[in-house]
Amino acid sequence: MQSRKNGSARKIMTKIILKNVKLKEKPVDILIEGALISRIVPTGSDPVLSSARTDVSAAQEVMDCTGKVAVPGFINMHTHAAMTLMRGVSEDQKLEDWLNTIWGLEDKIDSNFVHCGSKIACLEMMKTGTTTYNDQYWYPLASHQAGLEMGLRPVVSYVILDRFDSNEAARQKDQCQMMYEGSLRWPERSVFAVSAHAVYTVSEEMFLWTSEFVRKRGLKLHIHLSESRAEVENCKAAHGGLTPTEYLDSLGILDENVIAAHTLHLTDHDVEILGNRHVNCVHNVNSNLKLASGYRFKYRELMDAGANVCIGTDGCASSNNLDMLEAMKTSALLQKAWREDPTAMPLNELLDCATKNGAKALGLNAGSIKEGYLADLMIVDTDNTYFLSPGPFLANFLYSAHSDTIHSLICNGKFLIKNHKYPEEEEILANAREAMKILSK
Amino acid sequence: MQSRKNGSARKIMTKIILKNVKLKEKPVDILIEGALISRIVPTGSDPVLSSARTDVSAAQEVMDCTGKVAVPGFINMHTHAAMTLMRGVSEDQKLEDWLNTIWGLEDKIDSNFVHCGSKIACLEMMKTGTTTYNDQYWYPLASHQAGLEMGLRPVVSYVILDRFDSNEAARQKDQCQMMYEGSLRWPERSVFAVSAHAVYTVSEEMFLWTSEFVRKRGLKLHIHLSESRAEVENCKAAHGGLTPTEYLDSLGILDENVIAAHTLHLTDHDVEILGNRHVNCVHNVNSNLKLASGYRFKYRELMDAGANVCIGTDGCASSNNLDMLEAMKTSALLQKAWREDPTAMPLNELLDCATKNGAKALGLNAGSIKEGYLADLMIVDTDNTYFLSPGPFLANFLYSAHSDTIHSLICNGKFLIKNHKYPEEEEILANAREAMKILSK
Repeated sequence: MQSRKNGSARKIMTKIILKNVKLKEKPVDILIEGALISRIVPTGSDPVLSSARTDVSAAQEVMDCTGKVAVPGFINMHTHAAMTLMRGVSEDQKLEDWLNTIWGLEDKIDSNFVHCGSKIACLEMMKTGTTTYNDQYWYPLASHQAGLEMGLRPVVSYVILDRFDSNEAARQKDQCQMMYEGSLRWPERSVFAVSAHAVYTVSEEMFLWTSEFVRKRGLKLHIHLSESRAEVENCKAAHGGLTPTEYLDSLGILDENVIAAHTLHLTDHDVEILGNRHVNCVHNVNSNLKLASGYRFKYRELMDAGANVCIGTDGCASSNNLDMLEAMKTSALLQKAWREDPTAMPLNELLDCATKNGAKALGLNAGSIKEGYLADLMIVDTDNTYFLSPGPFLANFLYSAHSDTIHSLICNGKFLIKNHKYPEEEEILANAREAMKILSK
Repeated sequence: MQSRKNGSARKIMTKIILKNVKLKEKPVDILIEGALISRIVPTGSDPVLSSARTDVSAAQEVMDCTGKVAVPGFINMHTHAAMTLMRGVSEDQKLEDWLNTIWGLEDKIDSNFVHCGSKIACLEMMKTGTTTYNDQYWYPLASHQAGLEMGLRPVVSYVILDRFDSNEAARQKDQCQMMYEGSLRWPERSVFAVSAHAVYTVSEEMFLWTSEFVRKRGLKLHIHLSESRAEVENCKAAHGGLTPTEYLDSLGILDENVIAAHTLHLTDHDVEILGNRHVNCVHNVNSNLKLASGYRFKYRELMDAGANVCIGTDGCASSNNLDMLEAMKTSALLQKAWREDPTAMPLNELLDCATKNGAKALGLNAGSIKEGYLADLMIVDTDNTYFLSPGPFLANFLYSAHSDTIHSLICNGKFLIKNHKYPEEEEILANAREAMKILSK
């Protein structure tokens, strides 16, 4: 695991120069120093950048990006990364059958499974343009280590899920505190957060404890909220007619540090609350569709009310892949369809949901390609059929192209994918194959 | 253009041997002779196939397919191929604005535009696993030539669209007859059909004429049907309360040789008619979503009633790409979501809609990998993250993977894509770029 010590021991600051790359339709040269974008100039206007050649001894890499476009790295705001090793295990099934299959498998997994599963998830995310992911899963230390090893920017939670059992609650408080203390020695690249799973799995006492815990420490709180109609109905029955949003608001938990996954079945009052509290609401469109949870996500209403809408994929056991491009396209198309309005969720806002809004939710200076921002970005190759049209780049990238047009990916100022290649792919695949065997034991 | 004469002059029958390829989870060796699959045996059980080595003089190609899976080529049942050069030109717009933009551009195009645009469309289709496409566009001879040159199996229509003008109708009858006569000299690989555009663009007289024309000659009839709510309402106003389906049925036009694109806004009575007449109904999910036409496609009702449901992408100006994998996934997910039933449109039926059902609609012995069937198939590489799970191949392929896992494509017994490469890609891109300039004149 990379540590602060290793980080500070590195005397020479690495440099990347991206020459002649298009940024918002204009050709620029970009200088990346350490983890940050330090300079963006019109192509050729800075003689030092223009004349730069790769010089390994100076820890400098130069890429000629002619014909390519720079796009901020995607921020996948809701994942269960290790479940990548469970995809396809329960297809075309009712929710209860699906859950039974998943829970049966989760009884078998270990930290090696989570480590290898998270690494393969990271590989998939890197190849599909994601630089930051907000994860929630068992064995979070293994998942954190995987994200670090892969070079991505992981947001890893300790998961509070007490099932209304006070002994379990006490144990989880201890563990959460321990993991938090450990996280003080994490490198800057990774973010520690806390999850309180959902209103149907977490007691009131633990919601209150968790909220106080994260507020005192300036952490983010990751919750599943109003994913299914059943969740809403059961909550109303248990809490005097309050919806999950109303219930959590009555506990005083909701604020701009809460990341609420799904937020699908919302009343007008729920939307008002989520807006007033500036909650970060994560749309997981493919998962919601596939599990038949619903499709009328209130994007416009939430944004207008003051909430911050982000996009996520959910885990691969429900949505089947971690491809943010696919999630973005389906999100936009669904908004247009159920509202019967082709102007709903236009392209610029769609990109913001997958980049800027996620950065805002996590408090990162990422999600945009600007001087002083984290160097988390992808280089898209436009020399192919998907970009061959008079349409704008963003239309072609988000509606037409696939992730195989992503030529390179930089996270935290380092190339993770270069010319479509990740050097250790075979090894990661082999380890994942081995780890997966535990499921059939 | 390839002609029957060239076809018959070829004395040596080409052979392809696919060794150790998985077919429905079992390893087999496949022998392809000429355009047909002639032999499928368990891997290693036929010594001639097992010991085969590539020998160019014998016009024989052998591919070791270990770790790969054979899947029937997709049949895209509704395209406007040349519109690939117009994608992205009108994004996030209301239908009327979208149509104005498209019509403005269509005034400018010529046969070279259609030829180059159709070739780039074919390239995209090949790379995404499609072997047959049912096209409807202007300059159909140029579009046909493009499909032939690219090696795919094109279904090309003459387009009847008289706008209720009797002079135009007379001209179109003549042209249709001429194109039909020319098609008698087309090679077996391509299919001539006739389109009658839609109830709002074609007169009653021309519907009747076209129907008689295709029936006498055993041709297929391709129609847009009930794509939007406005189409239905306008038809009811114009035809004494009859829906588009009822109206066409009242003319006696609907039968199993009709390919009806969209069939989205249907009454129960419409479904009954389309079922009783065994009409082929093409679901164009992404186009319907993006133009906000609707999403409640009655898949189960149509199939149960006796209709044959197929899948299409529509043209790239509305749906933005020609990727059948994407169309299949969105189709299935939407069925699950709006029906609130995760068991809706299961995987096997989903694949059938994109393969067998299309072949049935077109009367082709394709859509399945079986002895005696046309050798139209793809080879999928499973040595990657998308197939690394205990789930079945079909779940991983249709819900998780992208088209970049398609390693090779064979159409009519010839490799079109081999190891992800199409040899003339650069030239096709360059010609398309040149042809596209006509749009900005």
